[in-house]
Amino acid sequence: HGKFISIVVDFARQAMKLGRDDPRRIIHSLKVGLAITVVSLFYYFDGLYGGFGVNAMWAVITVVVVFDFSVGATLGRGLNRAFATLFAGALGVGVHRLANYTGHKCEAILLGFFGFIVAAVVTFLRFIPKLKARYDYGLLIFILTFCLISVSGYRDDEVLEMARQRLFTILIGGATAVIICISICPVWAGDNLSNLVAGNLEKLASFLVGFEAEYFTNSGDGENKDSKSSLQGYRSVLNSKGTEESLANFAKWEPCRGWLRTFKYRHPWKQYLNIGALARQCAYRTDALHNLLNAGVLTPLEIRVKVQESCGKMSSESSNALKELATAIRAMSPPSTADSHIAKSKIAANNIKSLLKTGLWEDNDLLEIIPTATVA
Amino acid sequence: HGKFISIVVDFARQAMKLGRDDPRRIIHSLKVGLAITVVSLFYYFDGLYGGFGVNAMWAVITVVVVFDFSVGATLGRGLNRAFATLFAGALGVGVHRLANYTGHKCEAILLGFFGFIVAAVVTFLRFIPKLKARYDYGLLIFILTFCLISVSGYRDDEVLEMARQRLFTILIGGATAVIICISICPVWAGDNLSNLVAGNLEKLASFLVGFEAEYFTNSGDGENKDSKSSLQGYRSVLNSKGTEESLANFAKWEPCRGWLRTFKYRHPWKQYLNIGALARQCAYRTDALHNLLNAGVLTPLEIRVKVQESCGKMSSESSNALKELATAIRAMSPPSTADSHIAKSKIAANNIKSLLKTGLWEDNDLLEIIPTATVA
Repeated sequence: HGKFISIVVDFARQAMKLGRDDPRRIIHSLKVGLAITVVSLFYYFDGLYGGFGVNAMWAVITVVVVFDFSVGATLGRGLNRAFATLFAGALGVGVHRLANYTGHKCEAILLGFFGFIVAAVVTFLRFIPKLKARYDYGLLIFILTFCLISVSGYRDDEVLEMARQRLFTILIGGATAVIICISICPVWAGDNLSNLVAGNLEKLASFLVGFEAEYFTNSGDGENKDSKSSLQGYRSVLNSKGTEESLANFAKWEPCRGWLRTFKYRHPWKQYLNIGALARQCAYRTDALHNLLNAGVLTPLEIRVKVQESCGKMSSESSNALKELATAIRAMSPPSTADSHIAKSKIAANNIKSLLKTGLWEDNDLLEIIPTATVA
Repeated sequence: HGKFISIVVDFARQAMKLGRDDPRRIIHSLKVGLAITVVSLFYYFDGLYGGFGVNAMWAVITVVVVFDFSVGATLGRGLNRAFATLFAGALGVGVHRLANYTGHKCEAILLGFFGFIVAAVVTFLRFIPKLKARYDYGLLIFILTFCLISVSGYRDDEVLEMARQRLFTILIGGATAVIICISICPVWAGDNLSNLVAGNLEKLASFLVGFEAEYFTNSGDGENKDSKSSLQGYRSVLNSKGTEESLANFAKWEPCRGWLRTFKYRHPWKQYLNIGALARQCAYRTDALHNLLNAGVLTPLEIRVKVQESCGKMSSESSNALKELATAIRAMSPPSTADSHIAKSKIAANNIKSLLKTGLWEDNDLLEIIPTATVA
């Protein structure tokens, strides 16, 4: 009993934190409620209900299933659902007509056979990676609608009217979801993606600053270094691939908005993914540096003092270059001074190389800069 | 026109490759077709149809939506759907009764209000990470069923009968999906997870072997090293986190089968995730080693010759230890000789450390062994 209460309290605290961290989540929840209330009106007003009858429920189902957090996801699902319903409905009606020419018993066998074929083939198509990324939901709805239309056609001869009504209510539900999603505090997946990428670059930059301070001040006691949050920030960069890819997939559905028109590329999402992949490569190297710090095996002090100046210069310049890139991504403008930072940092790295011929590990840092240079 | 044909041919080739790579995909597609055909029988036989009428379509919808590749995913969705329908149906019927006491106009307002509240609150609950991981689908179905039941109750006073029929058809659809999924060539998410983790360890092991050969034979020409596939295999380990987590979530739904009962842990999925995370840490370090190779900046030959023996011993022993672990995971038995491999490799690593006091980078390899040692 006491455990149950503590679980509930725990959930409530988590929920409050989620709402405080990102108030858009609360707004999203209210938007979903509003959209469902709007499509419910079809039931409450006699005039509207008369036109669709029981099929009005498809509008409610569509809103619940289609409405998602970002505009891109909502639009993608809505379009997938609408087109899949259209095509599957047309095919279903066609198969129904075809089966109608045969006898009643033969019709059932024919319909069952077609249902089996369509379900098996389309299910297999869902394994193809390209289709899965963007049209997975549409393929699912295709199976669903085809089976429903062809199968209920066996009981109800008004199959064309039924398919028409269903398509129409789904369009109404989808349109309601999309309109409410865009008009009230919209959340754009494209913006989320560029913020995520820029944030990742900033985390790497702050790691470099923190690393330099740690590496040259500590005396090898190897204690409580893990507590530094600036040194831990990069960890989330390591596993950001999935999030970035799904955001880019959503963003592809979004229309071209104001600031995007000033871009040369109409949809720069692929570029963002490239930057994200390079940032992850940097993060892997960052991880190696971080482990070096935690291992407690440090280069003798005299060597460290020798390289301190060049090394400090290198990491602060690379950090500046990364910050510059992040700002440029957020502001959607080409970075102005990043190149000079990278050049300075390369000079510093070469200095170190000439100082240490055998101590190869510092090259990690140099390698870290090369990919970011190609980004600029 | 020609472009369209080439796209279709391309897709066909991809689809054939997918089928050849994993024939379970073809079997899965046929299973989905079979399940849909089975539930369609409700429409075709008059006796079965009479009991449910139009509500029979919910069985078809359930099969299409619930049937997934692995048993865990299918069971998870099926149970989510069944329980969500049960609770939401009960709540919907309750709200309908409550609203019935008021007037007809007041009823619509009350139902709309409740729909809004439930939709908003449950949508917000879906943001809580723990609920999202396992019950996201159930929460969605909860909103859907509640809105459908409470809203259609306004038009149809047989709301209890409707809710009962809907629940019953959903149970039939879900049971059909689960039974067909388990009885014909089942795909267990738990097996997939342990294979994935073991495969990742094997990739790391083969990298170590390949790396040793590359590092000590090449003369720093820095060419076509990227073509070695054994050196590239580890890349997929870097981004395996998402796949592992979703497989573990599915596996949690799966019943305890034969070989699992011999385990001390009833559900060892968390252990797999831990091993997976450690394997990823190794992969980050592997990435650092790989970059070292590609950078073309190599330690002078005399030093390399000096450390060759110890280094070779170290990497082959760690590679053996990793392979041993992978075999142990596949065979579900404790690894027998891995500990001795790790011990030998540590001795070799210490030899190198004493040889090279300034060339710190080899410690990467040592660090690589420590986590695997904690696994054993």
